[in-house]
Amino acid sequence: MKKELPACPVETTLTLISDRWKVLIIRDLLTGTKRFGELKKSLGSISQKVLTANLRAMEESGLLTRKVYAEVPPRVEYTLTETGHSLKPILDSMYKWGEEYEAKNAS
Amino acid sequence: MKKELPACPVETTLTLISDRWKVLIIRDLLTGTKRFGELKKSLGSISQKVLTANLRAMEESGLLTRKVYAEVPPRVEYTLTETGHSLKPILDSMYKWGEEYEAKNAS
Repeated sequence: MKKELPACPVETTLTLISDRWKVLIIRDLLTGTKRFGELKKSLGSISQKVLTANLRAMEESGLLTRKVYAEVPPRVEYTLTETGHSLKPILDSMYKWGEEYEAKNAS
Repeated sequence: MKKELPACPVETTLTLISDRWKVLIIRDLLTGTKRFGELKKSLGSISQKVLTANLRAMEESGLLTRKVYAEVPPRVEYTLTETGHSLKPILDSMYKWGEEYEAKNAS
């Protein structure tokens, strides 16, 4: 699905991952394929509706793929695409920065 | 101002810059001190109220400093702190990733 992209590449990236949940979903999927329930449990306070909306948006942006297995109950799994996985350096930078900020602000 | 920090450093970073506007404010201040009006103009569709709220939150997190000059009309300038400036590698990663995404999704 093609959308208008903003002029500044930082804005392009933000358009796709401006949302806190999206970044945390990517963090969870960087360690491998996850089921819907696993993501929901890991994210804690997210509602089913919001998680579904975020996953759908990320699927449309080409960041992840969704696979449904015809089991009873149906199993739904989410996996990062190559594009999604390529966000790893950004999350690694965020991890490193967060660690340093915590160290500086520790009592 | 000390606040509870989340367990995962990625979440810590997101707590401070989860907001699209905050990232764009940092982008603008990485090139140097800016006046309130300059930031507002650069950000385009942001309202005065939302910009003020974001700048205040970032001041409290220690990402920027605010300086008021007793002129008529008063001049207010914002500058990144060392902590704020240390976010540069994250924004650089976002810039690079955004460029690559745009190249892949160009028609």
